[in-house]
Amino acid sequence: MKIAIAQQNYTVGALKNNKFKIIESIYRAREAGAELVVFPEHAVSGANCYYLMNKSQFLEACEVAMVEIASHCEGIAVLLGLPVYDRNKRVSSAVLIKDRRIVKFFGKKNISCADEKIYYDSSTGCGFVNIGDNRLAVVVGEDIQTEEWFGDNTDVVVNLHADRYFRRRIETRYDHIKTASFIHKKTFVFVNHLGGQSETVYDGSSCVFRRGEGIAFLKSFEEDFVVVDTVAASPVPIPPQNHTVNVYKAMKLGLHDYFEKNGFKKACLGLSGGVDSAVVLAVAVDVLGAENVRVLMLPSQFSSEHSVTDAVEMAENLGVEYDVIPITEAYNAVHESMKPVIGGTSFDKTEENIQARIRCAMLMALANKFGYILLNTSNKSEIAMGYTTLYGDMAGALSIIGDLYKTEVFSVARYINRRIEIIPENIIKKAPSAELKEGQKDSDVLPPYDLLDAILLRFVEENHGVEEIVNAGYEYNMVSHIAECIKENEFKRRQLCPVLQLSSRPFGTVYKLPLINKYILYPYEVVSDKE
Amino acid sequence: MKIAIAQQNYTVGALKNNKFKIIESIYRAREAGAELVVFPEHAVSGANCYYLMNKSQFLEACEVAMVEIASHCEGIAVLLGLPVYDRNKRVSSAVLIKDRRIVKFFGKKNISCADEKIYYDSSTGCGFVNIGDNRLAVVVGEDIQTEEWFGDNTDVVVNLHADRYFRRRIETRYDHIKTASFIHKKTFVFVNHLGGQSETVYDGSSCVFRRGEGIAFLKSFEEDFVVVDTVAASPVPIPPQNHTVNVYKAMKLGLHDYFEKNGFKKACLGLSGGVDSAVVLAVAVDVLGAENVRVLMLPSQFSSEHSVTDAVEMAENLGVEYDVIPITEAYNAVHESMKPVIGGTSFDKTEENIQARIRCAMLMALANKFGYILLNTSNKSEIAMGYTTLYGDMAGALSIIGDLYKTEVFSVARYINRRIEIIPENIIKKAPSAELKEGQKDSDVLPPYDLLDAILLRFVEENHGVEEIVNAGYEYNMVSHIAECIKENEFKRRQLCPVLQLSSRPFGTVYKLPLINKYILYPYEVVSDKE
Repeated sequence: MKIAIAQQNYTVGALKNNKFKIIESIYRAREAGAELVVFPEHAVSGANCYYLMNKSQFLEACEVAMVEIASHCEGIAVLLGLPVYDRNKRVSSAVLIKDRRIVKFFGKKNISCADEKIYYDSSTGCGFVNIGDNRLAVVVGEDIQTEEWFGDNTDVVVNLHADRYFRRRIETRYDHIKTASFIHKKTFVFVNHLGGQSETVYDGSSCVFRRGEGIAFLKSFEEDFVVVDTVAASPVPIPPQNHTVNVYKAMKLGLHDYFEKNGFKKACLGLSGGVDSAVVLAVAVDVLGAENVRVLMLPSQFSSEHSVTDAVEMAENLGVEYDVIPITEAYNAVHESMKPVIGGTSFDKTEENIQARIRCAMLMALANKFGYILLNTSNKSEIAMGYTTLYGDMAGALSIIGDLYKTEVFSVARYINRRIEIIPENIIKKAPSAELKEGQKDSDVLPPYDLLDAILLRFVEENHGVEEIVNAGYEYNMVSHIAECIKENEFKRRQLCPVLQLSSRPFGTVYKLPLINKYILYPYEVVSDKE
Repeated sequence: MKIAIAQQNYTVGALKNNKFKIIESIYRAREAGAELVVFPEHAVSGANCYYLMNKSQFLEACEVAMVEIASHCEGIAVLLGLPVYDRNKRVSSAVLIKDRRIVKFFGKKNISCADEKIYYDSSTGCGFVNIGDNRLAVVVGEDIQTEEWFGDNTDVVVNLHADRYFRRRIETRYDHIKTASFIHKKTFVFVNHLGGQSETVYDGSSCVFRRGEGIAFLKSFEEDFVVVDTVAASPVPIPPQNHTVNVYKAMKLGLHDYFEKNGFKKACLGLSGGVDSAVVLAVAVDVLGAENVRVLMLPSQFSSEHSVTDAVEMAENLGVEYDVIPITEAYNAVHESMKPVIGGTSFDKTEENIQARIRCAMLMALANKFGYILLNTSNKSEIAMGYTTLYGDMAGALSIIGDLYKTEVFSVARYINRRIEIIPENIIKKAPSAELKEGQKDSDVLPPYDLLDAILLRFVEENHGVEEIVNAGYEYNMVSHIAECIKENEFKRRQLCPVLQLSSRPFGTVYKLPLINKYILYPYEVVSDKE
């Protein structure tokens, strides 16, 4: 059977554009002799629609677009994902169109994504259909994980999916599909959504496996169109994956689409001389071009000499416009004005935070004045620990490294420098510091990052308890301190700027703690609470 | 049948304290001769637990607490709400304990609250049980809205609930329960959660209706304990409700519990001379006492004379400590420092926002230095329209008026002044202004608040489309402008401080729009999109 796979980048709510892209691919597939063309879940609407799913006019508009698409499906079968309002339920559906007739809907049953649980209802799940001589099972989204398509005498399982990218997701996904197609002796056609959509990145990587052998692999992080003959096609090797390269591509796609789809052109950020802002700048220049990125260096009296020189070197490496604006006078003016209130006290986090907040005000002034979009430069390790300033360095329109641990940021930095030194080596090598007081180093209050990140990974991503982590060989005091910091800093994370989701468990949507929370995860979580 | 109702204020995760409160009420109920004592949904754990539901140790700890509670249930039956991990599902359950034995679990089937959809699984729903000569249906939460307890020959329907307060919720809830008990000719025992929990307020207002007649009403917004004889009790009138009084009580309880349960004592805020900050200050003083509240007046060159004098008058009315800190010097220093970047441009929103951000930095300096908690002073009308400054007046630990439209804030202000003039009349009477530029008035860019709020109410709370609202008699240009502003300012609301939920549709949890969103709700929502 000749099946075309259209892996296209749609935009949420851009129904007209999405419709045109779909219709174009239908003609292309027919010309290529395909019997069936498959589009991903949410093709008509884009994904994720959030509250738009509650607007009946939006769902009607999606159906209107579908009807128009159907009028173009002469001589070809089409499987297309869209949200549908069906018997009081809001359902993520696949529709089968054949010879311009809307033949059948298949509604998703299992909803595992947190945001979808709010906006979508569970439907009836997998369905079956004959196209030519082939019997197909049609499965939407994560319904593929249940095995309802088992008993039926199907040749091909078609899965329309919107499966977001996260750390090592592509390789595990290939693995699952390969295994399932081998065990069940069927051909699996996996068609994935593509593109940056709000905080989410869909990586595409659509593929076809026949009885455990890959016979088609579409590109990752790019549009692609493939026609595959499920019977005649020869096996091809599974594309090798590199974690850091994929993360880099995901950041690029997420940032690109956030700007492109929103009609934004220009970004700005504060360049501190540290590795976080260096990585954000490098990605921004890669995506938007040096001419569309502008940076400020905002040194205070606590900034070391090398902070500014390293930052300037990097800006000049990349050819971006930069200004060095010392914050000392503004800091002194705020501090002096506040003397009636805070005069006579000694230097503490108050004074540290004033510096971060003045920087935020200055960066936002640049953004407001000339229409730049401020990029945030916080990483997940410091966000977890609360080693950040609210309304200071937590600000921005989008964070592209906020779901990467510090050690991952270093990996990305080294990847950026793989050919030439874009990020000055000194930025990567020096000991991380917030430089908000004299001689400050991150290591004064945080464990070494390799240790911190190893514990955070277990606690956050793998959902291990304190006891479990201690039993794995980590020091009790350190683990419980980290658990406590994560809990105590939830109030900050609630006000963090939107973060591109690159891990299996980003803070925010699912990892959301109560703001009033007396539960103590240690010493041993079952027996104690301190009230 | 003699049933005791324990309406108590629990704290999320404070399992030991919650357990003690529950055990105390069990003894009290037995002494009062009750056959059964009923606690609300989530009594053991507190509600809402968010991500704690994903921690197996937390669910185990809840069960351990339940087992200890059971050991105290000699000679009395107990119905108690707690989360349970049951056959791979996380279930909001009621447990029946009789003579120290754990007899039966009843798991909630219908999950309508957005946050619960993420963290809870659907269980089997309503169950039945005999206690003495009575047959009871036990229903958890919103399962009461389905009618599975119909066919059964029950005398009494017991509903353990955690039903949050929102605008006019108490009166509609009484109405539903009264009607259901009349139609089905049964006695309904409704036991509700109480207290401020993160952004949510549970109002209590537990009640018993027998065949359409109220026979017991517990207090709203307060703990209460009542023993009711479901057969012998005489009818009592339904307590009258006043919308503004209830909103005021909800704000008080939400603010009180946020501080009390978190161990916070002192609050600070910026007092602008406008009605929003005046209302927040009045509530804060009512809850925390004047000695625990401190305000800053932060005038700029654009502040009118009366702004400071009105604010000072109010602070003196209430006896709170205040300082007048002009921001002009700090503003000039920031603006002057940024000259290399923004010099030579004319005054626009950039300069307006700098003022708001300097105020934020100063208020946070006060908060950081002395441990005050910053209260936000934004209202829902301006949050909807984006008439606010990110990292400026959108900052704070908690907003108690962020889910109230401006017209509701005025109602609350008048209620606060019902006996004596706490808020100077001039603050209530003068035309609202952000005072960020010369002669600025809210009405320069916003429709009059009565009109704006009427449209927002239809668009946000009632989910009407633009066409529907225009057909109801509102001007097309105004309605579509408002719809556009709501969409365009989603990025700001994503970084808004936590807001006490007082309406049926607060921004954030459910009302969350995509950050990339090309869907146009007008001119007529079905037919058009502009891309």
